[in-house]
Amino acid sequence: MRMYDIIKKKRDGEELSTEEIDFFIRGVTDGSIPDYQISALCMAVWFRGMTVRETCDLTYAVRDSGEKLDSTKIRGIRVDKHSTGGVGDKTSLVVAPIVASLGVKVAKMSGRGLGHTGGTVDKLEAIKGFRTTLSDEEFVSQVNEIGLAIVGQSKQFAPADKKLYALRDVTATVDSMPLIAASIMGKKLAADDDCIVLDVKTGSGSFMKTVEDSKELARLMVDIGKNAGKKMTALITNMDRPLGYAIGNSLEVIEAVETLNGRGPEDFTEVCMTLAGHMLSLAGMGTVEECIQKAKDAIADGSALKKLIEMVKAQGGDASLIEHPDTFEKAKYSYAVKAPRAGFIGLVDTERYGVSSLLLGAGRNTAEDSIDYAAGILLRKKTGDFVQKGEEIATLFANDEALFGAAAETLLSATEISADPPADEPLIYGVVK
Amino acid sequence: MRMYDIIKKKRDGEELSTEEIDFFIRGVTDGSIPDYQISALCMAVWFRGMTVRETCDLTYAVRDSGEKLDSTKIRGIRVDKHSTGGVGDKTSLVVAPIVASLGVKVAKMSGRGLGHTGGTVDKLEAIKGFRTTLSDEEFVSQVNEIGLAIVGQSKQFAPADKKLYALRDVTATVDSMPLIAASIMGKKLAADDDCIVLDVKTGSGSFMKTVEDSKELARLMVDIGKNAGKKMTALITNMDRPLGYAIGNSLEVIEAVETLNGRGPEDFTEVCMTLAGHMLSLAGMGTVEECIQKAKDAIADGSALKKLIEMVKAQGGDASLIEHPDTFEKAKYSYAVKAPRAGFIGLVDTERYGVSSLLLGAGRNTAEDSIDYAAGILLRKKTGDFVQKGEEIATLFANDEALFGAAAETLLSATEISADPPADEPLIYGVVK
Repeated sequence: MRMYDIIKKKRDGEELSTEEIDFFIRGVTDGSIPDYQISALCMAVWFRGMTVRETCDLTYAVRDSGEKLDSTKIRGIRVDKHSTGGVGDKTSLVVAPIVASLGVKVAKMSGRGLGHTGGTVDKLEAIKGFRTTLSDEEFVSQVNEIGLAIVGQSKQFAPADKKLYALRDVTATVDSMPLIAASIMGKKLAADDDCIVLDVKTGSGSFMKTVEDSKELARLMVDIGKNAGKKMTALITNMDRPLGYAIGNSLEVIEAVETLNGRGPEDFTEVCMTLAGHMLSLAGMGTVEECIQKAKDAIADGSALKKLIEMVKAQGGDASLIEHPDTFEKAKYSYAVKAPRAGFIGLVDTERYGVSSLLLGAGRNTAEDSIDYAAGILLRKKTGDFVQKGEEIATLFANDEALFGAAAETLLSATEISADPPADEPLIYGVVK
Repeated sequence: MRMYDIIKKKRDGEELSTEEIDFFIRGVTDGSIPDYQISALCMAVWFRGMTVRETCDLTYAVRDSGEKLDSTKIRGIRVDKHSTGGVGDKTSLVVAPIVASLGVKVAKMSGRGLGHTGGTVDKLEAIKGFRTTLSDEEFVSQVNEIGLAIVGQSKQFAPADKKLYALRDVTATVDSMPLIAASIMGKKLAADDDCIVLDVKTGSGSFMKTVEDSKELARLMVDIGKNAGKKMTALITNMDRPLGYAIGNSLEVIEAVETLNGRGPEDFTEVCMTLAGHMLSLAGMGTVEECIQKAKDAIADGSALKKLIEMVKAQGGDASLIEHPDTFEKAKYSYAVKAPRAGFIGLVDTERYGVSSLLLGAGRNTAEDSIDYAAGILLRKKTGDFVQKGEEIATLFANDEALFGAAAETLLSATEISADPPADEPLIYGVVK
């Protein structure tokens, strides 16, 4: 089998066989296929697409390219939630404790943020002392004991995806539906959960810019998961506005804790309840409606917050920060971004909001960059709100005043202010089962 | 300027600017753009194509990527002929001496063969002592003195093309019209001839499998050349059958000498006369018809053969081989390929004929392979001929008997023998000016 023939076949619009896809991913993993052939195939796939069968084969080959979690040692049903990446998305910090507090296991491996999107692992590391690297034994025994653990992704997890993604990122082949699906699901399936709820973000701050594309991606990933024996649900959620008001690591942890205290922003709380409801329902805890009610109860009676505190303690974090979120270290400087004119805040370019936060030091441009956990943005006004000229629409936080200029400009340029209120957009566009 | 943005722009079907194409070729030449980005762009171009303006810019950037011939020192009008590559194509060995014998300068840089196609330089090296590497001074003074020199391409010539072609060759992006045009014309224009006649081969033994594609490629290359101030003509010629009867280096030199003696095969002679006629006419020697007559006269009065002998002597070759072609060293072994049944020889897969010759040792698989100059094929029957069962259709020559099996099988599998005579195909499909 020759990589040349595989590239040519896909280029000419033919379907690759299981053997050809396995050959490709094996070669990516062991380095025997040179980068220039990998990128040529990715570009051919960008143009020609892949059938569902090809995409399944690609996903399973990616899953099998490295180590897997040995889930046999974890007792009980395990459920995971995966977001395709957004801005200000701290849902994992809320839904994981809710679900675990109701007796369903969450053994979660999360990513770090890169570019304009944040990562759950970075947010957790804003909690002093929190360890996101556990040994397999620690991880499994913590899940068995308290029902919940969130760690960073092991380096040996789906290494083919790591290599592929790095190449796609520099060759303009990231936004290909089958490649996105195989990348996300290849890693997810390696973690071997019983149930997976996907949160497919749609709009300016996400991979998929239209609802139709998001539904297609959701359908594809649900089918890939089911075909591998998993219980699957996907929600299509709105990313044309940030979730909640906080962007930035400790700012988001604080907002998540507020939400677990029952004082969270309406939009963010709704998405969290819906996600938790679907997760619990997939795990056999009742209908979605019943499970949403259980999730609300877990907030109301404090058991979800208690579960988060348990996890923080178990992983070495300073739980007093969760109990008293006002004690998180603050950024040295803050800056008020003011409305240049009166009007309604329209739809915003969420991706640029993420970039603004990045410019403040809250994210990283390259994997080697370090993060300023206190930096970020607190929105004061969101889509649909009316503002007077000169009214504060957001507060920026940074430990270096010189960063405010560019960050404020980026945020303002991403915010439409107009005489008419924006059209209503749903928070959740649909469910794919 | 970032290569990523250039790839994305082309991927999305937009037109690249002159500056972007220059940036790309500069990066290819100096190695600052990694191979995986080059191959991704080549694949995007394969799918999206390029406008004539983009293709011109690409060609000129390739031309300017390395050294050029300083043509100012050559006196008189210079004409070149370039073939897009075929099997058994020894036309340069005939037309160059004809044209030079009539007072038009031919300062030719030729390639080596690779894969199933042969190269003029390899054929000339079949003549004992012939030097295909001359210094610039030697090259120029030989052309000024006798009007004719044929050498191998200097390593510093259009280095961007060398790099690009090597990558295209392993990423299934060779057969892209703008990339082929820029590759051929970039090198041709670096040689800075006044007039160029292109021989665009069409059919099984060439890049372009259909007449329509060949005409399009011809049109494109003619326009690129004219745009650079050159006089241009392209012929579309048939490669659904080998030209003449000989395939293999010394066998082809012998056939070329026979042709210069007026005893050449009809098809090959016709193509040579037409090419020479167009070359002379472009150089201002009269109408094409008048120039074809001049070419025939140069054969009839022996002046063209005399010119070849002059060149061979000037470049250190053993001219007695040209005067007495029967003294070329023979291969140790020969093998008769016989017709498995009676019938008419149909259209043949010329590319596979080239592979058969390669298997006998007449070509090279990689640039490092050495060549057996005596090896090759003499066809006894060609398309349209009737054969009896068991009649010899070709004689194979090799210095290793073990090579005959696979070569004979390849040749037979590429030869259709059927009850009905094949449809007539013209030898020359058209002229693009």
